[in-house]
Amino acid sequence: MQAVRIVLVNTSHPGNIGAAARAMKNMGLDRLCLVDPQMFPSAEATARASGADDLLAAAHCVDSLEAALADTSLVIGASARNRTLPVPMLDPRQCAELVMQQPEATNTAIVFGRERTGLTNDELDRCHYLVQIPANPAYPSLNVAAAVQVISYELRMAAGLSLDRPGSRHRYATTEEMELFYQHLEETLLAIEFLDAGNPRQLMRRLRRLFGRARPNENEVNILRGVLTAIQQRRGNPMP
Amino acid sequence: MQAVRIVLVNTSHPGNIGAAARAMKNMGLDRLCLVDPQMFPSAEATARASGADDLLAAAHCVDSLEAALADTSLVIGASARNRTLPVPMLDPRQCAELVMQQPEATNTAIVFGRERTGLTNDELDRCHYLVQIPANPAYPSLNVAAAVQVISYELRMAAGLSLDRPGSRHRYATTEEMELFYQHLEETLLAIEFLDAGNPRQLMRRLRRLFGRARPNENEVNILRGVLTAIQQRRGNPMP
Repeated sequence: MQAVRIVLVNTSHPGNIGAAARAMKNMGLDRLCLVDPQMFPSAEATARASGADDLLAAAHCVDSLEAALADTSLVIGASARNRTLPVPMLDPRQCAELVMQQPEATNTAIVFGRERTGLTNDELDRCHYLVQIPANPAYPSLNVAAAVQVISYELRMAAGLSLDRPGSRHRYATTEEMELFYQHLEETLLAIEFLDAGNPRQLMRRLRRLFGRARPNENEVNILRGVLTAIQQRRGNPMP
Repeated sequence: MQAVRIVLVNTSHPGNIGAAARAMKNMGLDRLCLVDPQMFPSAEATARASGADDLLAAAHCVDSLEAALADTSLVIGASARNRTLPVPMLDPRQCAELVMQQPEATNTAIVFGRERTGLTNDELDRCHYLVQIPANPAYPSLNVAAAVQVISYELRMAAGLSLDRPGSRHRYATTEEMELFYQHLEETLLAIEFLDAGNPRQLMRRLRRLFGRARPNENEVNILRGVLTAIQQRRGNPMP
């Protein structure tokens, strides 16, 4: 549970930040990260946090989702809508099982979007999985703190029932390592003229989703980058 | 689900009533009963209910818990504390299973107490079961609307009203398509001299595992093979 952070993106209402902190602390989570909150700190956040104001005081405030995710290697985005993205969609129970199956030190982020509009497509592209809370199709959009409550509850339930973690010799690549890989990939695709800068046609987004689903470990990212470097050297355009 | 009512006893903050109504409607519950609320109706309740103000308008307001339970035959009380009462204690999942096992027309009430003090002993005596949400022992008391959210979520999960799985526009690649991709990949890696035929060092196995985990769809395999063809063409060695 300690490796799980809750990331709230661009939250409008400070009361929701406070209520989310309370829900987290009730369930035994304590790492809150706020990306560009519209009003924070705020007396309303503190009031709604009730006795969880220590989580607010310790919250990490950052400017971009990228910064929030830099050292994470599992990113799960909360989505109220059915997306036609080829990203695996989990319900909260499956989400909690997945988190509990990770090797112990896997930094994990669960990302919640704006009250009205959720996460943008660009933000969703950074997620390895989406989690959707089953809901009334006629009224599916939960309050963001209520969503944090449900997801955190399932994490606590799963932590109480979970089995031994599988060991892995390799840790998963971090978000930062993956970003460097995507940059390298894009440069290479431009160099071989597979990617047309004037008409990119969603290509990088599609490739991000594909590799995001695979969740490469550090060793695999090194192999992939080795392939890219070999392609570039063949073109007489070696990387520095 | 239609036979389940949520009963809120002597709630102090109208915002909590609104948030509880929203949580209920999100999860597909619609019968709200308010026992002696301290302030209701209220603009704050309506605001926090968001689009669930129809539940507030239809809420049953009564003077006593007795009146709220008159026509019910299963009563479950929410409790944050361990009680020494001889009443069976359920977690939210067991609670939802119990509710779903009832004959269809069993009127069921789930009763939530005051924000600060919960339910009195006299009120608990009217319950057939208690439900307790597992929580951080150092900070166990959930906001009442958050508790309604968790209990209602488990009811929805137990009712089998889980996710409508989004259909994907693309089918997964077949094994045969993946084998053709791996052949193409191997040829390309040999051509750029990243793969040494005399010393392959498990490279293809590693890449197979990586792409296997991603489970590409047919469209993604076409993109990947397009990249490989572009690399080969740049080497003056086009595929037939």
